[in-house]
Amino acid sequence: MDLKNYLSKKKTVIDRALQSHFPEPVGLLSDIIKALQYSLFAGGKRLRPVLCMAGAEAVGGNGADVVPVACALELIHTFSLIHDDLPVMDDDDTRRGKPSNHRVFGEGLALLAGDGLMIDAFALITTAGLSPRISPENVLEVTGLIARAAGYQGMVGGQAVDIQSEGKTVGLSTVEFIHTRKTGALIAASVISGAILGNGDETQIMAVTSYGKKTGLAFQISDDILDIEGNSSMLGKKAGADRQKKKITYPSVVGLNKSKKIQADLVESAIESLEVFDNKADPLRHIARYIIDRKN
Amino acid sequence: MDLKNYLSKKKTVIDRALQSHFPEPVGLLSDIIKALQYSLFAGGKRLRPVLCMAGAEAVGGNGADVVPVACALELIHTFSLIHDDLPVMDDDDTRRGKPSNHRVFGEGLALLAGDGLMIDAFALITTAGLSPRISPENVLEVTGLIARAAGYQGMVGGQAVDIQSEGKTVGLSTVEFIHTRKTGALIAASVISGAILGNGDETQIMAVTSYGKKTGLAFQISDDILDIEGNSSMLGKKAGADRQKKKITYPSVVGLNKSKKIQADLVESAIESLEVFDNKADPLRHIARYIIDRKN
Repeated sequence: MDLKNYLSKKKTVIDRALQSHFPEPVGLLSDIIKALQYSLFAGGKRLRPVLCMAGAEAVGGNGADVVPVACALELIHTFSLIHDDLPVMDDDDTRRGKPSNHRVFGEGLALLAGDGLMIDAFALITTAGLSPRISPENVLEVTGLIARAAGYQGMVGGQAVDIQSEGKTVGLSTVEFIHTRKTGALIAASVISGAILGNGDETQIMAVTSYGKKTGLAFQISDDILDIEGNSSMLGKKAGADRQKKKITYPSVVGLNKSKKIQADLVESAIESLEVFDNKADPLRHIARYIIDRKN
Repeated sequence: MDLKNYLSKKKTVIDRALQSHFPEPVGLLSDIIKALQYSLFAGGKRLRPVLCMAGAEAVGGNGADVVPVACALELIHTFSLIHDDLPVMDDDDTRRGKPSNHRVFGEGLALLAGDGLMIDAFALITTAGLSPRISPENVLEVTGLIARAAGYQGMVGGQAVDIQSEGKTVGLSTVEFIHTRKTGALIAASVISGAILGNGDETQIMAVTSYGKKTGLAFQISDDILDIEGNSSMLGKKAGADRQKKKITYPSVVGLNKSKKIQADLVESAIESLEVFDNKADPLRHIARYIIDRKN
């Protein structure tokens, strides 16, 4: 299959849905709407939405049915980027090659734009229940799953431990703890949500759960590696920033070579998890491999 | 009826449910759990949870059934207080007579504690569907309603316009715009959610919607008035702060006397909205009056 074409088609669907979701930025709310749209349309890869749609298709469901949830996952991801970039957090001036949200709109509005995206994600998720092929029970299950993945025991908790660990000497278990939460949890939730909404059976849900967790962790390890081997213009953010900030990363804990070995093993193991599926899971298989090859 | 006794009983139920909701703060996540618990158990009145339970009871439902959603509303309210107090927002050092969250835990962790509470609210809401008397469709409807009330078109949007308006000269329509969103929307959503989950009919939902919107706006006007007439030790935060920060308030726009008149009219009108109900709505009636009499 042609992964590039697949990703591009899905991205178009997601971008259109996201564009039509927000009202025109007019009136007193215009600034906050502009602020949240600025980061949402700054050129994201839409990896989480694509994984959600691919998860639904792998179990025989319809990717189009899960678009509201797929979009909600992108809102949550974008919220996390805006807050992570704030001066009190990672203090990053650029994101995706553009000034970060607070550099354009100020810290107060950036904080609120993040909050607004986060909350709106849950308004959006509920609209998935409008599709006749999706049961309200499944939408509720997915809402809880995504909230737990994003919350203080997931992404937000991972970020908390991440900022608290800067400059400390930690072992492999701590960096694994951070990475599985701050990045892995939402990526895993993306593909699992799709499979649940696509009415996957228990075996299928277990398979994509294993796939999602391994792929999510591998994705963050590749972020760590790109920070060392990538270049700033390709990344759209400053390379080498992790080292400068004394961030806990796989390379800083186990070295670059062992990080690559762990990442490659995770990707192979993620693909093995999918053996219960036929070729409808090929996009998921290719996306796992793409994680190792990506340049941004 | 004895409102004080009613509020106290409901508060006990909510406090117990909130206490049992969180895991012990141990391990790597202990700091963020401590940070979010710090603000959640800092002595809030639990007004929004009580309104949710009272809304369910007014339509003949069971208050105990809606406790997960009632608790979620308190999580959302607490999130908004933590973020509002941050230096990039209202920059408040005290809240409910204690140092504000970021003064104890630092700005980074306070930001994340707010995020964590917000997101966890939506995990908690979904557990309401476990009650056999509550339909998943109604839980989804309430999830969307609360998200819209809290998000960029509601509470978060109101806060955005609020910080952008500081020091400006505005008219009554702008302060009404801000107040109905930054405080009114979540208070209204609290009582409406209760009525929906309690299986209220269309007439009943319309009645509590009118009640909730008027009560919510009246509540914020009484906050404005207390900032002028209250004293810091009763309020648990610095009185006179609005004037110092050149906040847009009802008294700053229409004067103190007219603010009191508007507030009293709103409360009377809110109570009139409830005429379709029997004495099961008495707690809602008394809560509306309490808004004018409260001292903190």
